[in-house]
Amino acid sequence: MDNPYVSMWQELGLDLAAHDALLNVLGKTYTDFFLTQKNRPDGMGYFDFVMSEVHGLRIKELLDEKSAGRKIIGSYCVFVPEEIVLAANATLVGLCSGADFAMEAVERLLPRNTCALIKSSFGFKLGKVCPYLESADMVVGENTCDGKKKAYETLGSLVNNLYVMDLPQVKSEQGRVLLRAEYDRFKTTLEALTGVAVTAESLKTTIRTVNAKRAAIHRLSSLRKADPAPISGMDALLANQVFFYDNPERFTTSVNKICDELERRIAEEKGVFPAKTPRVLISGCPQAVPNWKLPYIVETSGAVIVGEESCVGERGTRNLTEETGDTVEAMMEAVVDRYFKVDCAIFTPNPERTAHIEEMAKDYNADGVIHYGLQFCQPYLMESFPVERALEEKNIPTLRIETDYGMEDVGQLKTRIEAFIEQLR
Amino acid sequence: MDNPYVSMWQELGLDLAAHDALLNVLGKTYTDFFLTQKNRPDGMGYFDFVMSEVHGLRIKELLDEKSAGRKIIGSYCVFVPEEIVLAANATLVGLCSGADFAMEAVERLLPRNTCALIKSSFGFKLGKVCPYLESADMVVGENTCDGKKKAYETLGSLVNNLYVMDLPQVKSEQGRVLLRAEYDRFKTTLEALTGVAVTAESLKTTIRTVNAKRAAIHRLSSLRKADPAPISGMDALLANQVFFYDNPERFTTSVNKICDELERRIAEEKGVFPAKTPRVLISGCPQAVPNWKLPYIVETSGAVIVGEESCVGERGTRNLTEETGDTVEAMMEAVVDRYFKVDCAIFTPNPERTAHIEEMAKDYNADGVIHYGLQFCQPYLMESFPVERALEEKNIPTLRIETDYGMEDVGQLKTRIEAFIEQLR
Ligand code: SF4
Ligand code: SF4
Ligand code: SF4
Ligand code: SF4
Repeated sequence: MDNPYVSMWQELGLDLAAHDALLNVLGKTYTDFFLTQKNRPDGMGYFDFVMSEVHGLRIKELLDEKSAGRKIIGSYCVFVPEEIVLAANATLVGLCSGADFAMEAVERLLPRNTCALIKSSFGFKLGKVCPYLESADMVVGENTCDGKKKAYETLGSLVNNLYVMDLPQVKSEQGRVLLRAEYDRFKTTLEALTGVAVTAESLKTTIRTVNAKRAAIHRLSSLRKADPAPISGMDALLANQVFFYDNPERFTTSVNKICDELERRIAEEKGVFPAKTPRVLISGCPQAVPNWKLPYIVETSGAVIVGEESCVGERGTRNLTEETGDTVEAMMEAVVDRYFKVDCAIFTPNPERTAHIEEMAKDYNADGVIHYGLQFCQPYLMESFPVERALEEKNIPTLRIETDYGMEDVGQLKTRIEAFIEQLR
Repeated sequence: MDNPYVSMWQELGLDLAAHDALLNVLGKTYTDFFLTQKNRPDGMGYFDFVMSEVHGLRIKELLDEKSAGRKIIGSYCVFVPEEIVLAANATLVGLCSGADFAMEAVERLLPRNTCALIKSSFGFKLGKVCPYLESADMVVGENTCDGKKKAYETLGSLVNNLYVMDLPQVKSEQGRVLLRAEYDRFKTTLEALTGVAVTAESLKTTIRTVNAKRAAIHRLSSLRKADPAPISGMDALLANQVFFYDNPERFTTSVNKICDELERRIAEEKGVFPAKTPRVLISGCPQAVPNWKLPYIVETSGAVIVGEESCVGERGTRNLTEETGDTVEAMMEAVVDRYFKVDCAIFTPNPERTAHIEEMAKDYNADGVIHYGLQFCQPYLMESFPVERALEEKNIPTLRIETDYGMEDVGQLKTRIEAFIEQLR
């Protein structure tokens, strides 16, 4: 208990014993999964540090921001527009949780047949182990899938200040009107919370800040086209995960620094795995910290992951917000345009996603696609069938995986994934 | 093969052998479940006849209507407004299917973890056993739950002329605007299909026709308040199921005739079960023909069902459409107002539904509520938790059931339901 952050966690109301247990598991998993990797870029040291301080220094920074009058906004979905949050003098943190916790308590509130992500978000609250959630001045839910939409009705009574954003289901004219109206309402709510009005100046700046983050991640992604791959899928996923937690400017600088190193590696033909290692694209549900099960299995089974078609990955970062607007109105329109392009499976129909998977498989020279679906996630599991048919028609081998956060199926998954990779050689 | 309808089924493209098998099971289940009931009202003879001719005479009638130039519209949800369909010179039939069929073929297109209703709708198509589906000139899907919304993307390639209606997720101003826009688009599509414009006169008439059907069912429902109950829950459910298939005027007349008989029974204190039999309200997912598993278990375990809070039941029929409008515009608004009140669990939040369940439990003198959720139905399973909490707070005993169309869990269900009923005595 001589951890310097204990009193901070205590003040946030965390359950110290449970939180200790979580940190131990997290630390051990991180060591086993990440630090054992060979040929890692030196720049990953930054992310190792970030992860070691994910409940420490980063929380202290957020609490310092709060003391200085900023507000902290928690989010479960990439539809919460960071540009607007930042412009209203608030900081956005991702809350999507990637581990089972307090499952017994969770299943008193939610059906057993709920996806692991939703259960985890409840578990982190009920178990009192998430300092981000406890630091948040407002938590934003969104009407995306049925699971989240209905779960927020209950989450509202558990967390402090839950705000629910409505979203369209169809990319129609009506749908865009709804998104615009909801982003306006969100902006007004933020302004009331922070007491800071979004101005043309502030929004212009924050659009650039968030675009810079995305551009850095694009740069990282495009370097993964090389063979041998200069960075593992595990490490690239980690960067995409830290995207949601870190200070934006520092994140951008750190990712660009790694990219400089990766460029040197590529020039030297230095990779994390030998050249000609089978290359896999992962597509599907978001993989939140510390849900590293699938990429760990893949990259210890003879393949390298070269891209993530996921909200913790390219689906979340693909599009930039147009920077040319000069009025709040024009920039709000640009923000809406940008987010309206996100091809989440909650939209119907959603042909753009299939097209993007094909495009990414081609761009990143993937030999095959693993579709990652969380058990009970109807949008992505449903969509995995037509996606598989479309990819197989283009002769892109595809493996559909349905799993959760448990470790019971690791052996069975490994067998299936090894067989799939064998087929890619 | 001397069935007079064989050539009709053949022309519709049914798989005759599979269809025979289905009819045999249906006939046997109907005999076992319905005809064995004691003290049935004589008026149920009408429904026995309807059910015996559900794939015969009724289909012939629909085909005759088609020959005379009418169009047949198939629907999977009570959000498809029958008033508008009828006013455009078309006939609406419900397609929600209540039995497993062609499961192996279905699971090549849909995740295993899909609700039985959706799987069944695919099974009836893939197995070529539903003459309603094959008679339909247009099939209407709707963006309600994730399961249906995403499944329609695949169903579109299986059925002829699938039309998808978007629906709001929130009962906001924006949500109402969307519903209105979608009903307008639907009207225009129907008019193009039938070549018949909806007029103030036709819409006024069909609003009355559909209201009359609903009023007849309301009358039937209110007679179930009596103790002893004059009609079984099985038979009342059957009437609610036939609501979706039958000719509207004939249905209204027949239900009213039964009601006359039930009034006499009540005067004579004659019931289907003895007075003081524990009374149960069923609440939750729709029960489509021939899904009679739950009510059969309940009513052979010592209780009587006195109401269905369901789309095949009071949720679907509760509200009438205001009849005072004189222009198409005014009447379209009235139709939108009416449907916007339907308290399906796909809406968030959905407090009206909990209030209605409490109200129904009180009105029908129910001793307890059984919440019926189809496995993998996220909207209703999620909502069953707060519903149960709210009911228990009002001291209304509640049992949450999660099941599918299989018969494997009948023994286990019966044990739980008997124990629950014991508690109500
Ligand atoms: S997958 Fe869909 S619901 Fe989930 S974070 Fe992405 S956009 Fe949001
Ligand atoms: S994984 Fe699927 S079910 Fe779970 S929160 Fe995301 S979209 Fe919803
Ligand atoms: S339960 Fe909802 S989706 Fe199903 S028929 Fe009723 S309104 Fe439609
Ligand atoms: S029972 Fe539930 S999951 Fe199935 S179609 Fe109806 S609302 Fe959708």
